[in-house]
Amino acid sequence: MNFPSRLIEEAVNAFSRFPGIGKKTALRLTLHLLRQQQAEALELARAVTNLATNVQYCRTCHNISDAPVCQICANKSRNQALVCVVADMRDVIAIENTGQYNGLYHVLGGLITPMEGIGPDQLKIASLEERLATGEVRELLLAFSATMEGDTTAFYIGRKLQGRDIRISTIARGISIGGELEYADEITLGRSIQQRIPFQS
Amino acid sequence: MNFPSRLIEEAVNAFSRFPGIGKKTALRLTLHLLRQQQAEALELARAVTNLATNVQYCRTCHNISDAPVCQICANKSRNQALVCVVADMRDVIAIENTGQYNGLYHVLGGLITPMEGIGPDQLKIASLEERLATGEVRELLLAFSATMEGDTTAFYIGRKLQGRDIRISTIARGISIGGELEYADEITLGRSIQQRIPFQS
Repeated sequence: MNFPSRLIEEAVNAFSRFPGIGKKTALRLTLHLLRQQQAEALELARAVTNLATNVQYCRTCHNISDAPVCQICANKSRNQALVCVVADMRDVIAIENTGQYNGLYHVLGGLITPMEGIGPDQLKIASLEERLATGEVRELLLAFSATMEGDTTAFYIGRKLQGRDIRISTIARGISIGGELEYADEITLGRSIQQRIPFQS
Repeated sequence: MNFPSRLIEEAVNAFSRFPGIGKKTALRLTLHLLRQQQAEALELARAVTNLATNVQYCRTCHNISDAPVCQICANKSRNQALVCVVADMRDVIAIENTGQYNGLYHVLGGLITPMEGIGPDQLKIASLEERLATGEVRELLLAFSATMEGDTTAFYIGRKLQGRDIRISTIARGISIGGELEYADEITLGRSIQQRIPFQS
C-alpha cells in the first residue's frame, strides 16, 4: 500500500503491529483518529505512554498494580490461606467478576508453551514456591484454560510441589451453565461424567 | 470490568473508543503493549501524537498530505483534465493500487448520509465547483461505493453540475472479475445486462 502521507504510514505501521490487526484495519483505525477531535487522539497517546513508562507489578502476586503491593494482596479481609494461580491479568479480572472467590492470586505471566519458547523459568513459578515457604498458604487453586498449555503448566506445578503439605485443586471442567448436552464436545462431556459430583436438591 | 490498575483502565478506555473495538479487545491490545518492549509502545504513542498534531490536507484535492499540495496534485505528468471524485483517502489508495488511473482526485471527506447528519455542506462539494471554474477539468469520474449513500452523492453532484460543459462518468458496476454468475446478486447481474458493453475478442 502506498500512503499519501508519511504520518499516516507511521500510524498504520504502529497499529498493525498488534496481533490480529492487519494493514486495512490499521488504516481504518488511523482514519478514525483523524476524524475525531485532536484531544481524543492525544488522550490515546498519553494513555499508551503512561502505560509503557509507569506500570508496576505487585511484588507478591505479580499482578499489574498501581502500588508495590496490589489492592487484592493488601486486603486483609481476603482468605490469606487460599491462592489462585492464573496465567495473566485477564484471568484475575474474569474470576473477580464472578464474585465467588475471596482468596489471593498468583499471576504466572503466561503458560508453559514450548512452541513459543516459554518454559517454567520464564514464568513466576520460583516466586510461587518462595511464597509457599512461609506456610501461610494452605491451598493452591490452579485456574488455567482447558488447553494443552494449561494442562502442561498444571502438571508441572503439581509435580514441582509434590510432597509439600498443601492442597492443590483445579477449577471444575464440565458442561457450561445453560449449555445443551447434545452440543457439548465428547471430551468435556466425558470429563463431566468421570468427575461427577453428589446431587444437591 | 474492574481493572487492577488505573493505567490499564485508561488505556482500555482509550482503545475502546475505536469503532468495532470493545472492552475485551481493548484489554487484549493493552496487554499486548505491556508484553512488548517499552520502545514499541512509545513508538505508537509518538505516531498517534504526530498524526493528531501535524497532519495536513492538500489544498487542491483535500487528500491527506505532508505538504500544502499533495504528491498527486503536484505531479504534472498526470492527466490534469480528469478528476476522480471519491469519499475518502482509502478510495484514493485503492484506485492508485490498480495502476489504471492517471488523473487527479477530489476527496469529498465522506458521502451524503442524512441518517448521520452529513449533508452536502459537510463535504468538499463547493470546493469541487470552484475547482471546475478554471475550465481545465474536462471530465469528472465519480467513484463511490455502490450503496444508497454513494448513489445519493453521485445524483446530487450530477444535478449540481447540470448545464456545465463537462463530462461526468461513474465507475462500471457489474460482475467481479473471477465472480460466478450464479452467485451474483440479481441487482448487480441486472445492471451488468442493462449496461452491457461491446465484446472485444
